[in-house]
Amino acid sequence: GKKIRFVTNNSTSSRSQYIEKCKRLHMEAKPEEFFNTSYCTMLYLKKIHFKGNIYLIGNTGLYAELTAAGFKCTEPGPDPIPPHWREWTVQEMKLDPEVKAVVVGFDEHFSMTKIIRGASYLRRKDCLFVCTNSDEQHPCGSASVVVPETGCIVQAMATVSGRTPTVLGKPEPFIAECIRYQCPDLDPSRTVMIGDRMNTDILMGKRAGLTTILVGTGIENLESIRHNVQDGKKDLIPDYYLPKLGDLLDMLK
Amino acid sequence: GKKIRFVTNNSTSSRSQYIEKCKRLHMEAKPEEFFNTSYCTMLYLKKIHFKGNIYLIGNTGLYAELTAAGFKCTEPGPDPIPPHWREWTVQEMKLDPEVKAVVVGFDEHFSMTKIIRGASYLRRKDCLFVCTNSDEQHPCGSASVVVPETGCIVQAMATVSGRTPTVLGKPEPFIAECIRYQCPDLDPSRTVMIGDRMNTDILMGKRAGLTTILVGTGIENLESIRHNVQDGKKDLIPDYYLPKLGDLLDMLK
Repeated sequence: GKKIRFVTNNSTSSRSQYIEKCKRLHMEAKPEEFFNTSYCTMLYLKKIHFKGNIYLIGNTGLYAELTAAGFKCTEPGPDPIPPHWREWTVQEMKLDPEVKAVVVGFDEHFSMTKIIRGASYLRRKDCLFVCTNSDEQHPCGSASVVVPETGCIVQAMATVSGRTPTVLGKPEPFIAECIRYQCPDLDPSRTVMIGDRMNTDILMGKRAGLTTILVGTGIENLESIRHNVQDGKKDLIPDYYLPKLGDLLDMLK
Repeated sequence: GKKIRFVTNNSTSSRSQYIEKCKRLHMEAKPEEFFNTSYCTMLYLKKIHFKGNIYLIGNTGLYAELTAAGFKCTEPGPDPIPPHWREWTVQEMKLDPEVKAVVVGFDEHFSMTKIIRGASYLRRKDCLFVCTNSDEQHPCGSASVVVPETGCIVQAMATVSGRTPTVLGKPEPFIAECIRYQCPDLDPSRTVMIGDRMNTDILMGKRAGLTTILVGTGIENLESIRHNVQDGKKDLIPDYYLPKLGDLLDMLK
């Protein structure tokens, strides 16, 4: 009789794609159980009654959530830089006068052309700068390669534009606000936040007054917790640690 | 009978390319008059007796300076991301075991593939992280578009890697050190630093005890000086202001 909510900073899938993924894992899940940042970005733009076009640095999942809700935004995909890119930028590049927001999520086709377009829109004082999340790396289980997350794209755009983004994902308050809105009877003293990253999952859980559990199957482990204990970073230290999520069953016995 | 030194954070040209540019502007210039960051990066790697291969995020000018000095580094140019990029990253991407430095300059072909490769090399504790400069924008004279400079690339790489870069250009000390080394008899009280950016040119001049002049033909003007005066940023306020460099002639009369 426990309620479960899936809360992820990943912006590359829509809710329906997550439901499909759960099916493949033989788990039944409903749309209202998902709080992913592509969905939250749509909710945020609705909440602030956003009007105007969106310049998107992002992926198909984010594009699907935004356009399904009626927002008009540029399509994801490659945008290669032309050979004479500086002349092109200054003399030929077309900017849409109706763009009122630059929305940034993970984009594997991130490029200098996208930096130029995004920074040019952000030069406009009335253009919003909204980002799904600012995670630095995506856990991939490899000791030699690094899979980036959205944070590096967000920092590039913040640096070139000199602007501070509105970040929606964990540990920022908006995604928690969405959950509270949809689950008004949620009792923090009877709620557990389980996650694999301390500066997003555990920090958000602490801020919301929840019991927190770190699982060691992402990019962090018992050693990372010890570092945070040594550094006195109280808000990042989970109440419990599990090497893997499956250990929760034994813990509950 | 005045000595002139051209000091630029731009890393996209080699010294010989700058000499060509001066010729086109009907100015005669010698290699020893140029301190550009592609040249300084080569000097820095020589100074620290760097051994190993270089992973380059940069341009042909930086590549030319590094390889002419005998350093082995990856070639500049596009490095598009493959369709199944995550599987490719984790299972197939080849990393050179001899890479001991990631060198970052301006790269118009900056891409997610370069972020992934650079971040993977920077995961190695013995790999250096050297950047030509951290300027945010390149002046282009347009009110609507923004031409990025190296700073956004540097911040993306610093964020994904969790590492702090060694920055060589203005206002950091290395480029000034290069000038002092080559001009040991330089007398600060008789030297003027002329530049178009306060957080690089003027700050470097102040730190070196030089007289400073801001010219208004870049991205800053009298209004920007007033902002720094209001904010009490003393190190960023030039001694003199000229709307354009040509006004220097009248000033000297």
